[in-house]
Amino acid sequence: KRARDYGIKIGVLKTGINNAITDVEGVKVGHTTLIEGDSIRTGVTAILPHSQNIYQLKVPAAIYIGNGFGKLAGYSQVKELGNIETPIILTNTLSVPTASNALISYTLEHPENKNVRSVNAVVGETNDGYLNDIRGRHITEKHVLEAIKNAKTGKVKEGNVGAGTGTICFGFKGGIGTSSRVIPESLGGYTVGVLVQTNYGGVLEINGAPIAKELNSYPYKNGMEADGSCMIVVVTDAPIGSRNLERMAKRAMLGLAKTGGIASNGSGDYVIALSIAKENLIDSTNDSSFYNKTELKNSKVTPLFLATIEATEEAIINSLFAAEDMDGRANHKIKALPVNDIIKIMKKYNRVK
Amino acid sequence: KRARDYGIKIGVLKTGINNAITDVEGVKVGHTTLIEGDSIRTGVTAILPHSQNIYQLKVPAAIYIGNGFGKLAGYSQVKELGNIETPIILTNTLSVPTASNALISYTLEHPENKNVRSVNAVVGETNDGYLNDIRGRHITEKHVLEAIKNAKTGKVKEGNVGAGTGTICFGFKGGIGTSSRVIPESLGGYTVGVLVQTNYGGVLEINGAPIAKELNSYPYKNGMEADGSCMIVVVTDAPIGSRNLERMAKRAMLGLAKTGGIASNGSGDYVIALSIAKENLIDSTNDSSFYNKTELKNSKVTPLFLATIEATEEAIINSLFAAEDMDGRANHKIKALPVNDIIKIMKKYNRVK
Amino acid sequence: KRARDYGIKIGVLKTGINNAITDVEGVKVGHTTLIEGDSIRTGVTAILPHSQNIYQLKVPAAIYIGNGFGKLAGYSQVKELGNIETPIILTNTLSVPTASNALISYTLEHPENKNVRSVNAVVGETNDGYLNDIRGRHITEKHVLEAIKNAKTGKVKEGNVGAGTGTICFGFKGGIGTSSRVIPESLGGYTVGVLVQTNYGGVLEINGAPIAKELNSYPYKNGMEADGSCMIVVVTDAPIGSRNLERMAKRAMLGLAKTGGIASNGSGDYVIALSIAKENLIDSTNDSSFYNKTELKNSKVTPLFLATIEATEEAIINSLFAAEDMDGRANHKIKALPVNDIIKIMKKYNRVK
Amino acid sequence: KRARDYGIKIGVLKTGINNAITDVEGVKVGHTTLIEGDSIRTGVTAILPHSQNIYQLKVPAAIYIGNGFGKLAGYSQVKELGNIETPIILTNTLSVPTASNALISYTLEHPENKNVRSVNAVVGETNDGYLNDIRGRHITEKHVLEAIKNAKTGKVKEGNVGAGTGTICFGFKGGIGTSSRVIPESLGGYTVGVLVQTNYGGVLEINGAPIAKELNSYPYKNGMEADGSCMIVVVTDAPIGSRNLERMAKRAMLGLAKTGGIASNGSGDYVIALSIAKENLIDSTNDSSFYNKTELKNSKVTPLFLATIEATEEAIINSLFAAEDMDGRANHKIKALPVNDIIKIMKKYNRVK
Repeated sequence: KRARDYGIKIGVLKTGINNAITDVEGVKVGHTTLIEGDSIRTGVTAILPHSQNIYQLKVPAAIYIGNGFGKLAGYSQVKELGNIETPIILTNTLSVPTASNALISYTLEHPENKNVRSVNAVVGETNDGYLNDIRGRHITEKHVLEAIKNAKTGKVKEGNVGAGTGTICFGFKGGIGTSSRVIPESLGGYTVGVLVQTNYGGVLEINGAPIAKELNSYPYKNGMEADGSCMIVVVTDAPIGSRNLERMAKRAMLGLAKTGGIASNGSGDYVIALSIAKENLIDSTNDSSFYNKTELKNSKVTPLFLATIEATEEAIINSLFAAEDMDGRANHKIKALPVNDIIKIMKKYNRVK
Repeated sequence: KRARDYGIKIGVLKTGINNAITDVEGVKVGHTTLIEGDSIRTGVTAILPHSQNIYQLKVPAAIYIGNGFGKLAGYSQVKELGNIETPIILTNTLSVPTASNALISYTLEHPENKNVRSVNAVVGETNDGYLNDIRGRHITEKHVLEAIKNAKTGKVKEGNVGAGTGTICFGFKGGIGTSSRVIPESLGGYTVGVLVQTNYGGVLEINGAPIAKELNSYPYKNGMEADGSCMIVVVTDAPIGSRNLERMAKRAMLGLAKTGGIASNGSGDYVIALSIAKENLIDSTNDSSFYNKTELKNSKVTPLFLATIEATEEAIINSLFAAEDMDGRANHKIKALPVNDIIKIMKKYNRVK
Repeated sequence: KRARDYGIKIGVLKTGINNAITDVEGVKVGHTTLIEGDSIRTGVTAILPHSQNIYQLKVPAAIYIGNGFGKLAGYSQVKELGNIETPIILTNTLSVPTASNALISYTLEHPENKNVRSVNAVVGETNDGYLNDIRGRHITEKHVLEAIKNAKTGKVKEGNVGAGTGTICFGFKGGIGTSSRVIPESLGGYTVGVLVQTNYGGVLEINGAPIAKELNSYPYKNGMEADGSCMIVVVTDAPIGSRNLERMAKRAMLGLAKTGGIASNGSGDYVIALSIAKENLIDSTNDSSFYNKTELKNSKVTPLFLATIEATEEAIINSLFAAEDMDGRANHKIKALPVNDIIKIMKKYNRVK
Repeated sequence: KRARDYGIKIGVLKTGINNAITDVEGVKVGHTTLIEGDSIRTGVTAILPHSQNIYQLKVPAAIYIGNGFGKLAGYSQVKELGNIETPIILTNTLSVPTASNALISYTLEHPENKNVRSVNAVVGETNDGYLNDIRGRHITEKHVLEAIKNAKTGKVKEGNVGAGTGTICFGFKGGIGTSSRVIPESLGGYTVGVLVQTNYGGVLEINGAPIAKELNSYPYKNGMEADGSCMIVVVTDAPIGSRNLERMAKRAMLGLAKTGGIASNGSGDYVIALSIAKENLIDSTNDSSFYNKTELKNSKVTPLFLATIEATEEAIINSLFAAEDMDGRANHKIKALPVNDIIKIMKKYNRVK
């Protein structure tokens, strides 16, 4: 069951049909999950903005660095050119280069790309090295290509899956989470979808209820760690360009804040934001010198900011609700969020009936 | 009464003695409040990091732009050189140049500065034009110099005072607010103080309680506006340089997020962060080619991030509790936060006993 | 006579008709020059991108900070929103607030702007305090408004005029300079115009000839100073948005480099870039939620980069050729570029026939 | 023969003993060069700032993005934390992930690093795909580790070597180049060393002489391309931190400008700057909460800027003088700089006796 199934309603905007990043039409998500032996607990999650050749039909994009203690690949070209040209891959910290290599292979191998000699792979990561034998670098290119191949529309698996297989969040098992928001028709009716890979610390709150305080479990208390990272992917069908996408990406960190995240020194918090509005996709095969765009005015983007904040907060909470107990490397054990206790606290604070 | 007096305890860290920016030793705050006739509702707030000649004893600093729809003066030099050389002034949007002129006068007139020909005035603002005849530009240099002269240590006036005289926050009367945190001795025992000028919108929460939802009052509901801005000043006695101050400044936006702020398109959200650790002040009269610093390592700054988040959240809430009803320009009327109703909601959500 | 009149041909692209920023259609420049008594040597230069109400018909823009030891006003809002809404004013360092106040007055007073309560004044500066009694702050709002009023298309006065009245460049009298380039029709036929306010140091080269070495006059030689600043304004009629304008602005620093500029620690080097392509001006009075743009693709902007570099280099050299000897404050005297000697050196290096 | 051996003296500062990046004490450079069959023309260049365990004794650093159309790995963590923790690797565009993997292997395998689970590999690249079968991704981890192992102090091979094996610059064969400057004792006597991988276009000038014009060969003339990239590594023994290193890195682009570089749309121009001053290296094994630094004041860094500009310009020119004719993929042939013709032009412009 997801947070909303327990009656936890985050925010004031309504969700999309699946309350998932895939509510943005055409977006696909795929996972490869590696759970092998005692110590391999890792994986890959792929997000595809559309189903055509992304290299040839580039997507307006921005990346915001919430805190840069991380190894995300692809930042500077997205900043300079305002678009992405590959699927987005999430994995573990030390497997970023392998995932980049896989994206290069994926791109070069497409028959239409036979003359391509430059590929800007976009890969994010968090560090699952507590549960996973991260030094073993068990992710292969094949795992990455499988995640891309597996990608599909519709419901998205959450929790201990894909890049979230071995992650930890607020001391509990973290993982993949997703959520979406639809803004009112009068404001454009656009959808904003978010997917997160949660692996960070702080002082947990769920929809405003002070979970960490109630559990007496937070940083600098009982030796708990605050470090860790969160990867956030935001997709919308609203027609906006890279400047406003960067602004939107920045708001995702406000959603993270509402869960009690503090973006600790050791965190690699990155937000990748995309607009898949068809009218603004960048067709590289088109010969014109010009690019015609229809974009929302600056003054119309605030509802997208609110949607981003809400969907990010809920995606994170969903990752916690979906994740299950996990044992791993060196006999490390991480418990799932104790949902019954959580619901009791939520009731105490009148956030669940 | 301040929020904490009602039993609202935000965060997990303890406050300083006055729960104010002035808990950081040596920091002074002064206000000039202009309430004249039907339509002048504005003012000036000055923050002095120390009581010596700031131009000659510069202070390590950073400015983070949460959202740049604002007119803050002084950004680029602080970014380039990593320090400030004037008091910090907050006022209304259209009075920034006058405040800058006042800071130049203030600096030039100091006898030790008689050869000074360049001054980087740092002035922040929010737009009080709903209640205040902002087009009249009623702030004079004298008002600014008075705020500096009035500045003192100890308790800080909050609410409809100084630069907060005419501001609006979440549809209620906003204003000046302040708070502080002291991190545990084992982590350094440093103090972080925050002062805010609140003038923005969003979906109000107080310590996690869903105020806006309960009051049925938030953006895109009942025609409410989300726009507006928040100026945030963060001071610490922890010894950190401009790079880590910028990181700390960035966290203040996470505190704003926890009140329900969304950093709307029209917001000018800026965070100015300073370290007044004596060992790192920059003595311009010193002839050496070298600057010797003792700074906290990157790995030791996370507690300061948490302190910044908590103190920012509480400073904002304090501004709302302190502000009172205000009538102004064009018969505009803004109500204070309805404290009794709020406390009822807080009780409903078990956030006040 | 301008540099080109001596046979100094900088770059490979052709100039516009007047070899001036005003070659971009509709752009106007106006100066107010203050030379009074022994020690007032300063002024104001205004650049108007078009002749309509700029506040209501905003102009896509970007500001690049080459080195931020300066007091430019207006940076953050241009960065956030990608446009300017006032004329651009250049003046001396300590008169930036007065110029900002004048731009606010100018904007508020326009009948169509009677409900305007927020104005982002864009004002650049360099420090003319060696020749000018800068501490006296002799620029008034009236001077600024006169410069705007005086602004006209066509030839632009260079040298000791407007904001260049008291500036110094490479140890010689600097000032205002301008130049333009037209890219080949096959690449779009666009015009790029540049105007500079030169007040900086380095190791002077003119079109590659080693002037400073020949004159034995450069920093760390004979006690010469490297410090000082350069303001650069770039305007084009090519249809590009703020992201590509920022890239273009960045290239202006490459033009400065070719004159021997080194962007010293004490320099405030800012480049303001605008596109006045009519199809992309931002009409605030238009009710649509959407903004339709036709922009050059990323892959088509390189010729504009080359044009910016060449026009910046030549505008700087033009400022030196136009400026004349100036005496000022405290009996300080600055000589004009010794044109006869320079031409001899240019001949020695075969850069003038 | 290097440029200086022909009497081409760039700039006003003196060079270090070898006029190479290795003039900064302790810096080592190693190459792996792959020239195989008809179409493999690529390689790896490694720069080691010191000979200890870099992961445990991190080096203050900054990366400046001149133009971000590139795939450099490691940017965000260097920006956030201000240091590097691996050797710097340069290679071809599509081999960045393999080089990153090699740096991870290199770091994990060091016995002192047995608990390391996070490595920020810093890898730069340019695209050698005209001469090299870049799609074949022929660089292996072993090649990268060999370059590190081969690294040594003293003279540095230039031209068609390492990461410069297949690069093209201004239409001629580019490659690796290096140079250094020593600032006067009175200003600190520090050394600045630069190494470049040249693969870009523009309007070539050599020490101010208009080579491209004389050869009638430049972009938009004869179908010549402007695109391509330049990687620049700057090292100094001057004690400065990441903020001033970023400023210094920014100046390297001014050196590139003086060769006629224009930072075209398609360029990936990155500058990595390091300070190896022993007193400021960051010892991760040290238990203190504090980091004691002795840094040059802001006001003392300008000579380092000038040194960076000069050494970058000369390093680029050295790469052209050292590179030799190269045939490669698809019968592509690139000629070396025609040195005899160049010297004639240099004489025509009196830049060589």
